[in-house]
Amino acid sequence: MTNQELMQRDLKHIWHPCTQMKDHEAIPIIPIKRAKGVYVYDFEDNRYIDSISSWWVNLFGHSNEYINTKINEQLQQLEHVIFAGFTHEQIVKLSERLCHFTGLEKCFYADNGSSAIEVALKMSFHYFKNKGETRPYFVSLTNSYHGETLGALSVGDVELYKETYKEIMIHTLQTPVPKDRTEETAIQAAQELEKLFEQRHKEISAFIVEPLVQCAGYMHMYHPLFLKLAKELCEKYDIFFIADEIAVGFGRTGTLFACEQAGIKPDFMCLSKGLTGGYLPLSVVLTSDRVYEMFYCDYNEYKAFLHSHSYTGNALACAAANATLDIFENDDVITKNRIKIDYIAQKIAAFRELPCVKDVRQRGMIAAIELQGYKPQERIGLRINQEALKRGVFVRPLGNVIYFMPPYVITFDEIDMMIDSVYDIVKSL
Amino acid sequence: MTNQELMQRDLKHIWHPCTQMKDHEAIPIIPIKRAKGVYVYDFEDNRYIDSISSWWVNLFGHSNEYINTKINEQLQQLEHVIFAGFTHEQIVKLSERLCHFTGLEKCFYADNGSSAIEVALKMSFHYFKNKGETRPYFVSLTNSYHGETLGALSVGDVELYKETYKEIMIHTLQTPVPKDRTEETAIQAAQELEKLFEQRHKEISAFIVEPLVQCAGYMHMYHPLFLKLAKELCEKYDIFFIADEIAVGFGRTGTLFACEQAGIKPDFMCLSKGLTGGYLPLSVVLTSDRVYEMFYCDYNEYKAFLHSHSYTGNALACAAANATLDIFENDDVITKNRIKIDYIAQKIAAFRELPCVKDVRQRGMIAAIELQGYKPQERIGLRINQEALKRGVFVRPLGNVIYFMPPYVITFDEIDMMIDSVYDIVKSL
Repeated sequence: MTNQELMQRDLKHIWHPCTQMKDHEAIPIIPIKRAKGVYVYDFEDNRYIDSISSWWVNLFGHSNEYINTKINEQLQQLEHVIFAGFTHEQIVKLSERLCHFTGLEKCFYADNGSSAIEVALKMSFHYFKNKGETRPYFVSLTNSYHGETLGALSVGDVELYKETYKEIMIHTLQTPVPKDRTEETAIQAAQELEKLFEQRHKEISAFIVEPLVQCAGYMHMYHPLFLKLAKELCEKYDIFFIADEIAVGFGRTGTLFACEQAGIKPDFMCLSKGLTGGYLPLSVVLTSDRVYEMFYCDYNEYKAFLHSHSYTGNALACAAANATLDIFENDDVITKNRIKIDYIAQKIAAFRELPCVKDVRQRGMIAAIELQGYKPQERIGLRINQEALKRGVFVRPLGNVIYFMPPYVITFDEIDMMIDSVYDIVKSL
Repeated sequence: MTNQELMQRDLKHIWHPCTQMKDHEAIPIIPIKRAKGVYVYDFEDNRYIDSISSWWVNLFGHSNEYINTKINEQLQQLEHVIFAGFTHEQIVKLSERLCHFTGLEKCFYADNGSSAIEVALKMSFHYFKNKGETRPYFVSLTNSYHGETLGALSVGDVELYKETYKEIMIHTLQTPVPKDRTEETAIQAAQELEKLFEQRHKEISAFIVEPLVQCAGYMHMYHPLFLKLAKELCEKYDIFFIADEIAVGFGRTGTLFACEQAGIKPDFMCLSKGLTGGYLPLSVVLTSDRVYEMFYCDYNEYKAFLHSHSYTGNALACAAANATLDIFENDDVITKNRIKIDYIAQKIAAFRELPCVKDVRQRGMIAAIELQGYKPQERIGLRINQEALKRGVFVRPLGNVIYFMPPYVITFDEIDMMIDSVYDIVKSL
């Protein structure tokens, strides 16, 4: 099998996500045969550093031996069982660990990030319904991204994804995200949020936010103070605070969860992506006993949360998640990542000197280089993607923003190769 | 570890799907340690026949050796890679097979049934947008169920799941499902559908339907003629026909896909559940080149379908799906199931004589017994569930409707045990 053969077969029958398929008349689709550590290998044995952890999911490398072993062990016991009326050991263990790490009390599972967002939205709305209040609005930040199903899309604000569907979305409210990483803009944004809450708090079920980094929103970063102030406002106005840590959770921002940097505990925390170490689709919404108890009553009161997905609580995915948490615990990952975070900070500083660079920013294991002077139709990101692939590095810029979000097992040499390759490309633009 | 210990740990931190958690003060949650074939085993080695294939997903038994082997082989090569810009062999092979079996040309992947429905809705709406038309309505049948995310829920019509959220759903149109399994009611329902299309076709993107059986809608069944007539109307009025075969696909109704029994090819077909043999969350929307081409243009025209989920095209799930299709092909499953279908038909006929039985119906490997004379608050289904568990059989009635939807590997002895146990319970009510 060659790259070319598989690509042709792919293009005949597959419609890829988030892709204008016509691009592939000029740009090859790369068939991946195998992967190991930070590298993916095509059918001609070319290798590429997966600098974005395959859409921000992979933490401890591809084909990780420990995770492989744990999934295979689980395969021999139980692959899946309906999660209503039944339970299993992997999910009990996983739930105990997630509650321990987040300080929250209850876990409700789903299969992907979008579905977790929908659970959090429905649950917060339903809480007030059970209480006798109808609060049909959700508040989110400008430039936010929370997923693709219509509910999740409705609380998003990236025009590229949302504009087309405006007639089939639910009505939500947006308030400005802090403009930059200073305390000053954090305070300004919190003041705007308060104005909105003041006017409409009785109609609002929840405020939903991507803590610290709006990843799909061009890796926009803001000061943790905003989260602290927003959480205080939510408490003041009796509105739920939903932390969408799907992209930023599991160490991405330098702490296990991004909320820790603001010293806050959300009412709902949505997790997915890194939850299984990049292996399998699984998501979870963590919440409090206070929320749980509003649904806890005699069946015939019809207050139960009847949301379900067939594969909720999948045992194989839970085994991957427990293996991932084992690695966090056994390898002291958060502490060790600090050295890599500092090293990446030193490396990316060089970009600041380049005239086409507008901003260089970093939060933990997320580093972004924003370019200036390019129009959208020039598609500078795509050019950089193609040039980097030639050098064995896979990056996938968002508009004019190049970013690095590598698996945590990346070595210092691999960091050099990843960043130096992109630096050379940007310098020669 | 005992059942009791795990149950207590579960209840401390887990909120189960589609469950009033207070029920578990009286009803134990059963922790499953292992599973094999049609049986799941708890921590005290009690075994239960999984008569509903763990929410209609399992086809060839739990811990199926062939599927296990194939997943483990895939684990050694590639667990997952981003599915934009890259591809892999398992998904190319899977897409070729799905297109071959359905007669459709393109595959767009997601992680669960709800997300597949959202893809089909967004894609059909977006098609008309790209064509210059805005058609914000979707039509579905009364008593239909299409999932739990807000878009999917909005095209559903089971009050139990939907009523609570009406203020945060999008507006959709419902038309009556055929009342029973006769040709007459199929024709009546098609006439109603035509009235709606006549009035509003220019506002309607798609008609979405569960072919032959509304599974979550209390296993309501109708005549294939309705599908044929509805498809003709969709063509006449230029409205897309979305077949939600998530529950009925992969042999459940006796043919590989339910649409085959009506001799129709839908514009969109949504598949999940049995797609991976009950192993892993994966879903796909199949569609035509005609649809694909409406999105195919230069990037800067901004007509691409930008929907994505992080784990789209997961290699492990695709390996499970290919293994499942291997079994269909190698074991001549559809033909062999016919004997089991006939045997089940003979067995369930006995229920017709019981006074508390209102209706007995079957479509392929789905058999349903509808009881009469019980009020909802009596929760007769729950009583039957509890009695059956004592006899080693797991059933999960929907309201007053008991149903059997077993894995296809069930033996004749196991069919006897499954149905006889429930018969004894119903007889003694």
